[in-house]
Parts: sequence; C-alpha cells; structure tokens
Amino acid sequence: MSKATQLQSPSPSSAPQGKAALDTLLALVADDLGAVNKTIIDRMQSPVALIPQVANHLVAAGGKRLRPLLTLASARLCDYQGDQHVKLATCVEFIHTATLLHDDVVDESDLRRGKSSANAVWGNQTPVLVGDFLFSRSFELMVEVGHLPVLAILSRASSVIAEGEVLQLITTNDTATDEAAYLQVIQGKTAELFAAACKVGAEIAGRPASESQALYDYGNALGIAFQLVDDYLDYSANEAELGKTVGDDFREGKITLPIILALAAAKEQGLEDESAFWLRTMEKLEQTDSDLAHAMDLMQKHGTLEATRDRARGYGEQAIAALQHFPDNAYRQALAGIVEFCIERAY
Amino acid sequence: MSKATQLQSPSPSSAPQGKAALDTLLALVADDLGAVNKTIIDRMQSPVALIPQVANHLVAAGGKRLRPLLTLASARLCDYQGDQHVKLATCVEFIHTATLLHDDVVDESDLRRGKSSANAVWGNQTPVLVGDFLFSRSFELMVEVGHLPVLAILSRASSVIAEGEVLQLITTNDTATDEAAYLQVIQGKTAELFAAACKVGAEIAGRPASESQALYDYGNALGIAFQLVDDYLDYSANEAELGKTVGDDFREGKITLPIILALAAAKEQGLEDESAFWLRTMEKLEQTDSDLAHAMDLMQKHGTLEATRDRARGYGEQAIAALQHFPDNAYRQALAGIVEFCIERAY
Repeated sequence: MSKATQLQSPSPSSAPQGKAALDTLLALVADDLGAVNKTIIDRMQSPVALIPQVANHLVAAGGKRLRPLLTLASARLCDYQGDQHVKLATCVEFIHTATLLHDDVVDESDLRRGKSSANAVWGNQTPVLVGDFLFSRSFELMVEVGHLPVLAILSRASSVIAEGEVLQLITTNDTATDEAAYLQVIQGKTAELFAAACKVGAEIAGRPASESQALYDYGNALGIAFQLVDDYLDYSANEAELGKTVGDDFREGKITLPIILALAAAKEQGLEDESAFWLRTMEKLEQTDSDLAHAMDLMQKHGTLEATRDRARGYGEQAIAALQHFPDNAYRQALAGIVEFCIERAY
Repeated sequence: MSKATQLQSPSPSSAPQGKAALDTLLALVADDLGAVNKTIIDRMQSPVALIPQVANHLVAAGGKRLRPLLTLASARLCDYQGDQHVKLATCVEFIHTATLLHDDVVDESDLRRGKSSANAVWGNQTPVLVGDFLFSRSFELMVEVGHLPVLAILSRASSVIAEGEVLQLITTNDTATDEAAYLQVIQGKTAELFAAACKVGAEIAGRPASESQALYDYGNALGIAFQLVDDYLDYSANEAELGKTVGDDFREGKITLPIILALAAAKEQGLEDESAFWLRTMEKLEQTDSDLAHAMDLMQKHGTLEATRDRARGYGEQAIAALQHFPDNAYRQALAGIVEFCIERAY
C-alpha cells in the first residue's frame, strides 16, 4: 500500500513538483487567497447562527482551496487587474462546499477532511439546508459581480454537477458500469467545476473565447485527473493523511476505475471466482471483514491502481497541453505545477 | 373539525371568492400557464433520465402552481407585453419544487400532494440531488432572461428560504418558540418566495420601485396568510382533500401557531396539566395514540385554530391593501381573489 506514495514523478518539467507546486501557487496568489478566505467568512454569515456554524465545520477544516486557487490563478494568468475574481473564487468554493454537504448525506461517509462529517453531527436535515444556503449565497455573490457569461458558466456547472452525482448513484452497485460511464460520472461530479473555476478567470478578464476554452480544457482535464487520483487513493492512501477512511468506496459499492479494471481483467482472463467476488461485494454489497484486503490484493495483482494513476497522468498531460495557449510566465508554471501536485499527491 | 371548512368568508368584496377566484385567475393567464407547463417539462429534461423521472413525480402531481401564477399575473398587472415572464414563472416553480424535494428529506413526511413523497420512493439521496439540479436549472433559466435585478431578487429569496427552513429546524420541539419566532420562520420558508414571485413581475415589466415594492408586499402578506392556513389545515383538513396526513406537524413536534397559542393560553390560565401535555408531546416528542385528538380538543377549547385563521385574514387584508397601488382591472381583481382563495381554502 505504501508503495504507491513512493512513485517517481514520471515527467519532470520546469514546473515545481508536488507539494512545492501548491506552495508556489499559494505564494503567488497569497493576497488574493487571503481576501477569498475573508469573503468566505463574511458571506457565510446569517442571522440564523446555526448556518455559519455548520458551514464553518467544513470551511475551518480547511481543505486545499484548490478550486478557488484555480480561479485566482486563471484570472491572473489572463492579466486580470480587478478584484472581482475574489468574489468568483468564493462562489466556486461555496458551490463546492454545498456539494460536499449534500454529498455527505448521499454517501453517509463518516469522515470528511479528517473531522466527523456534518451529517454525523447534525443529521441529514441541517446540512442539506445549509448546502442550499451556500449555493444560494454563491449566486447572490455572482449577481453582485454582475457578469452574465460568468453566471451562465457557473449555473451550468451546478446543474452538470448534480447530473454527475445522480449518475454516480445510478452506477453504484452496478458492476456493468464501464470506463466510459465512469468518466461521465467524474466529468460531471468533479471536472466540470474545475473547468468552470478556470474558465471564469478568463471571462472576468474579458479574454477571447479561445483562452476561455483553453482554461476550460485545462480545468476539465485536471479535474478528471484529480478524481482518478482520489479514487486511487481510496484504496492506497494513509488514512491520517487522506482525512477519510480507506476503502469507503468499496464499502459503499461505488464502482470506480480500480474496480472496473479489476473486474474487466477477471472477465478477460476467465477468472470466475474473481468475477463472483466483485459481484457479491459490489453489486450485492455482501461483504465480510476480509473482503477489502482481498479486493486490494486483486487490484495489486492486475495492476489496476497503477493503471488508474497512469490514466490520471494522461489527463494531466492534456491539462498541461491546454496551458500552451498562454505565454510562459509564473502563473502558467504554477498551474502546470498544480497538475503534478494533483497527480502525485498522497492525500 | 369540519366546522372550520364551513366558515363564512369574512370580508365580501368585488373579487371572486374561494375556488372561483383561482379559476378566474387560471382563465386570465391560461395561455401563459400553458407555456409555463411546457417550459417546466422542457427544462427539467436531462441526459440522466432519473432526473426528469423524480422531478416529474412532483410536477405531475400538479399542485396549484400558485407561485408561477403569481408571477404571470403580476407581470400582466404591470402591463408586461413580452414573454420572459414565462421563464421566470418556471424559475419560481423550480425553486419551489427543489425546496419541496429537500423539505421531504427534512420532514420525513409520508405524503406530499397525495402521492408518496419522493424520498419514500427513492430514499434521501436522489431527491436531494434532483432538487440541486432543479435549483441550478432555475438559475440557468434566469441567466437566459438576463435581467440582473431579477437574478438578485430570486437568489436572495433562495437564501432566505434556506434560512427560514433552518430556523424551523431549530424551533422544532422547542416549546419556548413564540409567535414572533414562528412568523420569522414562515416569512422565510414561505412568504419570501411568494413575494419574490410577484416582485419579478414588476421588475421584468420595468416598472418603478414603488410598484415592485407593492407587489413584494402583496406577495409577502399573501405568503404568510397562506402558511398560517397551511398550519391551521394540518389540524383541521380533510385528509383526502389536503393530500397529506392530518397531524403531521404534531407528530414531528413542529411548533406552529395553533400550538403556540394553546400553550400560551395554558400558561396564562395556569393550567399546568395542559402545559405538561405540550411539553411531553412536542418538546420530548413522547406521544401516545390519543394525544393528537387531545391536542385538537385543547386547540378547540382555546379557539386557537380560529385565531390562526383570523391572523391569516389580517395578513390577507394587508395583501389586498398593497394591491391598491395598482389601477383596478381584471388582474388586480384576480390577485385579490387569490387572497380569499388562500385563506378560505379547505386544502
């Protein structure tokens, strides 16, 4: 299991690597990110005190602020000189946080960002409503910015996210789910917001459509890579670093790429006991204590965790290619570094 | 119990009464409403087929389409000649439907509009996500209309609704909830969307702020009256007509005005057994089979159901007063008639 985190980065580039890449980007947009954090706190306030309490449960837990960072860096890459990108980055984080709150209801996960999930503390009801509040507040902020194309991008992203999440529910426990269906799920539930977060940076800067599209492509490929790694880490990460339980996806019967590839290998090689194992554990959700370890042995045997990270590397290359549309500067290098960070991260 | 439905309308006016008032309004905006129904069906579509299935569960169940009717009539009252009010009415209905889907998760109610609630059929997860989809789709539609003040009104309404719903959760099982706190809950969870639905009619028509405000005031007072009657009907309606179970609020420990007034009367008159009854059933939620009937007897004894409908009539008068800002015409009369309909309805 620990082998995975010791992998060498496959494509050394001039961009900073791993955690250093995140730190480089954080340093570049430090002032903007400070303003975002302040806006997040300011704008999640409500006369109903329980709302900021619940929201703060996630916001204070931190997270990487990856999506708002993308908005800030994209706007700066496009030479944006104003300050509206701070509000837009906040919008993006609010949409993401709302999704997490609603996702916890969906996933019944016990841990989120290393703290107990909101629904474990407040039940299902409050997190759903606080998610609705943050989502609405996000649109209020967007309206203040008053840029209709940005509103179109983010409202569209929100409905695509919901579609992706519903599609994920449908594919859960369905071992007939193939790689194409899986990609459709993660494009919706994860990549669309990454893509929108980047694209709005170009839009607010008033850049031509080709740059908007390039940033959308960058964010989309990055988001797919990010989710592939997330799904890989669910079977290989150090629990304390990941901040959530290893094997969650397995226990829920969530059909992610490491399993899709393992089941495909079993079928191709006519390994009926393995096919039966996946059917029993994932489709029927009949699991014993030793099943997770066995599942991970099968993934190891067929190299599906490595294959998943390889797929992520492929999308990472697409993301970096999209950046070639822009002149080489500190922001482009930092955004390229973020690709490495997302792929080689261990949490 | 049936006495309530036989009450005389207190303030005869030139406006049509009761169900006839709804029919009058329906006839006036029949074409527009047809376009709204078509837009609802068109715009709830998704490549993810489960989404329109779940949405249609509520949409097909019908409901009164009261909120979109208010938008249509308000726009026409303001002499609006375009067709964007159809999209805005659809937005309003989508926000309302999303709220219902999330509300069913919250309330664990068994019946909604006479059909089993979405969460009884699909669990908590799918309705939350389909609610998110409709909410997002509503904003996509608003962006198509492209009118920033309208976007501000409806995004603000959405966050106020969420605040009202969270406040309702907080007051549930809290017998210290007073009439002021209750009014704050229903203003948020119900009246704000009524108010916004009306106000956007004036905005899209480009009318002066005073008319916008008058329509907001009309909708707000109407919404409060509507919710007061809803809470009254929870203890007095015919189950088949209401389309949901009588006594739901009681079983959930929801502190509505009929209970607030009954508990206040018990305290004022030093009736300690009654105070203890409310504390046991509502705060501790320790209920036996005969408790609902006893609760209704106590409401009857202290006249709190009648008092609740009287409060509704007071707000109805405020709503009608707000309409005086407009010239007397068929739309104004129909909107006045809707006040009577909302107050005197038996379902």
